[in-house]
Amino acid sequence: MAARARFTGFRTLDVRFPTSRHLDGSDAMNPDPDYSAAYLVIGTDAGDGLEGHGFAFTIGRGNDVQVAAIEALAGYVVGRDVEEVLGDMGATWRSFVDDSQLRWLGPEKGVVHMAVGAVVNALWDLRAKRAGLPLWDLLSRLSPEELVSLVDFRYLTDALTEQEALELLRAAEPGRAARREALLREGYPAYTTTPGWLGYSDDKLVRLAREAVAEGFTQIKLKVGADLDDDVRRLRLARGAVGPDVRIAVDANQRWDVGQAVEWIAALAPHDPWWVEEPTSPDDVLGHAAIRRAVAPVRIATGEHVHNRVVFKQMLQAGSLDVLQIDAARVAGVNENVAILLLAARFGVPVCPHAGGVGLCELVQHLAMFDLVAVSGTARDRVIEHVDHLHEHFVDPVRVRGGRYLAPTAPGFSAQVREESLQRHLFPTGAEWAGEPAPPRGAGVPA
Amino acid sequence: MAARARFTGFRTLDVRFPTSRHLDGSDAMNPDPDYSAAYLVIGTDAGDGLEGHGFAFTIGRGNDVQVAAIEALAGYVVGRDVEEVLGDMGATWRSFVDDSQLRWLGPEKGVVHMAVGAVVNALWDLRAKRAGLPLWDLLSRLSPEELVSLVDFRYLTDALTEQEALELLRAAEPGRAARREALLREGYPAYTTTPGWLGYSDDKLVRLAREAVAEGFTQIKLKVGADLDDDVRRLRLARGAVGPDVRIAVDANQRWDVGQAVEWIAALAPHDPWWVEEPTSPDDVLGHAAIRRAVAPVRIATGEHVHNRVVFKQMLQAGSLDVLQIDAARVAGVNENVAILLLAARFGVPVCPHAGGVGLCELVQHLAMFDLVAVSGTARDRVIEHVDHLHEHFVDPVRVRGGRYLAPTAPGFSAQVREESLQRHLFPTGAEWAGEPAPPRGAGVPA
Repeated sequence: MAARARFTGFRTLDVRFPTSRHLDGSDAMNPDPDYSAAYLVIGTDAGDGLEGHGFAFTIGRGNDVQVAAIEALAGYVVGRDVEEVLGDMGATWRSFVDDSQLRWLGPEKGVVHMAVGAVVNALWDLRAKRAGLPLWDLLSRLSPEELVSLVDFRYLTDALTEQEALELLRAAEPGRAARREALLREGYPAYTTTPGWLGYSDDKLVRLAREAVAEGFTQIKLKVGADLDDDVRRLRLARGAVGPDVRIAVDANQRWDVGQAVEWIAALAPHDPWWVEEPTSPDDVLGHAAIRRAVAPVRIATGEHVHNRVVFKQMLQAGSLDVLQIDAARVAGVNENVAILLLAARFGVPVCPHAGGVGLCELVQHLAMFDLVAVSGTARDRVIEHVDHLHEHFVDPVRVRGGRYLAPTAPGFSAQVREESLQRHLFPTGAEWAGEPAPPRGAGVPA
Repeated sequence: MAARARFTGFRTLDVRFPTSRHLDGSDAMNPDPDYSAAYLVIGTDAGDGLEGHGFAFTIGRGNDVQVAAIEALAGYVVGRDVEEVLGDMGATWRSFVDDSQLRWLGPEKGVVHMAVGAVVNALWDLRAKRAGLPLWDLLSRLSPEELVSLVDFRYLTDALTEQEALELLRAAEPGRAARREALLREGYPAYTTTPGWLGYSDDKLVRLAREAVAEGFTQIKLKVGADLDDDVRRLRLARGAVGPDVRIAVDANQRWDVGQAVEWIAALAPHDPWWVEEPTSPDDVLGHAAIRRAVAPVRIATGEHVHNRVVFKQMLQAGSLDVLQIDAARVAGVNENVAILLLAARFGVPVCPHAGGVGLCELVQHLAMFDLVAVSGTARDRVIEHVDHLHEHFVDPVRVRGGRYLAPTAPGFSAQVREESLQRHLFPTGAEWAGEPAPPRGAGVPA
């Protein structure tokens, strides 16, 4: 009998893309992001050439801290039996999250939690590659019992029990095959944020908005929140460019207090925003609920910075949102997003994933497609964010046609960055950064 | 004219105390903590020999990640003008918290936020030393206007505006001098957790509980949440040891779901717990509120893991707690704790600080004493946690007499660890650790 395969490699890389040079990705809170990945490659001695790739997404400074947090989990992977770890991803997830010392640094939030996400997602990438399936399809083939075994129901049972989750998944089972076929045929609806970055001129906004509609998108998104007059003008220009039938979401990126959000949204409401995203602190469950009550029927969306399932649970309980925005790399990976998709389905709230950055589109499409096939069973009023940056660095980049994501067909989680891109963008030694002046230790000194 | 002083030193150390060897500090979620400090020493070229000391507290693994996060802030301190930074600590705080790239790693939570806390607290230590005052006294001498300038009211204004905070501080001003005198004379009430660690035997529990009462404590605390029968037995034993008039708080350290908490607390209620601490996830504002409603009049306490002022705001708005437990090293330092003390005063909720670990007693006593003198104006039903571990490593250790903290009189924030203790406990090279087997990269591999 051949020896059982073990995990032998745990390679981390600090990879940064100098996106701040062109103001791509600029918004009211994040004026100058350098989209970055605290990147992980997990290897085994199986001899099949397969690796698991995963990453935490950051926007520049601190990516080294995120890498250090991922490194802190190496001891939970290296040396362990591959089948055992991948075969019980529920137990694997708990072993990371429940480390009795590391959890103090969260608990279940921020740098340590995103580190768990990177490792968990890399393991799912490997599991899907070994199964020869794209991740969405692998997840969609798991039984309801296997799916609930992935979820830690701790702190959730006042909103969703394991039994309730099972019933929900069983109810969706009969339609799985038909939805899978439709998905492969038609793809999944997308919307685009490409026209709407705050750093772009009015002309560029209008041009890109028109192009988006010509490409088939039925929803676009604009960044707002820095200046009300600018926002009203930009929203009016965009509405003129796309016509009355295209949905225009706006995104405030946490800029407002509760009262300020209510006033600002009232001023934007005549221009028919489809949703208003992140009106205030992502921690403010009650604040979101108060804003939503005050501005109804304007829809409130949030989630890209919501740090775990316990906060999402409360947002659903409190009526904080009309649209729940999962992020593939903010919470603790696939397992926690399965929990969040189940919570959203239980409360009947549509999930419209956050994406963009680097690689977030590649990852999160799998979760939305799994939701469609096996959880909520619908793509009605659901759209995956799309931003057309940095996809060229991926081995299996997203494919968007006619305003829809085509379902990935390559095995894995689409997480893998091309080796030459990794090397070129290594910080601070890669070719892309070597010409830069040496950064001061830590952050840039403010003026 | 002499050149103005600048910050020249930013020395970080990974310091760990091997407390897990004796089960000191064991509870239902943290069975084997190694109390640790991601420690920072800030120096200047002022030539006065004064340094600012600060730290983030962790419980072992991951302390290196926390150190890396503190390092990421060095660029905001080194090279800057000392008077300018210390003279406007409100602006200084915002410069750290608002770093447009680092904030992505939180925002305002977890490792990056605790790193801000360490740097902010070290700067306050230096400012108090330069003023020749203990920190509590320095803060208590600031005008209401100076105090509100320390606070970032963003995300708070639906519960507390700057004007309301000013009025509250002005109302407390007339009594400051008398309360300062009384504090210096009588100290501040303490309670002790020393008898109640989960790893201790019944005999040790009873012996230590009796000793606590003999020393003058009027409140003790027991860890609970691992086994209900054990908890009832231990609570009964403690009650027998201390008599009916000593308050016994219990601490579940986040072990329960909402429904489970309600049942468990119902079983403990006949033994008259003074408060029940951390019944569930520290993120669960609504869960705490539901538990509190169900178990009233049993008091609910929480806060040591509440990651910022926005979550405390909601806990006060939702009625989640009877006792608010600030921690000196979890949130972003003195400034954010001033905000939280103001919120608590606004809602009339007593603040009973969390302490223990290493150095948390030393730090947090200053905040409670400042609250007494200049914010809430009372110590009624307020107590500072005391655990008699590791104080011998501090230059200015806490002094507890007759169950009360004596007010510190040495200049500074009492944060400074003795140099020989720092060197001895450096991880992994200090004498205390050098005899240990080399740790695997990252965490210990689970069985």
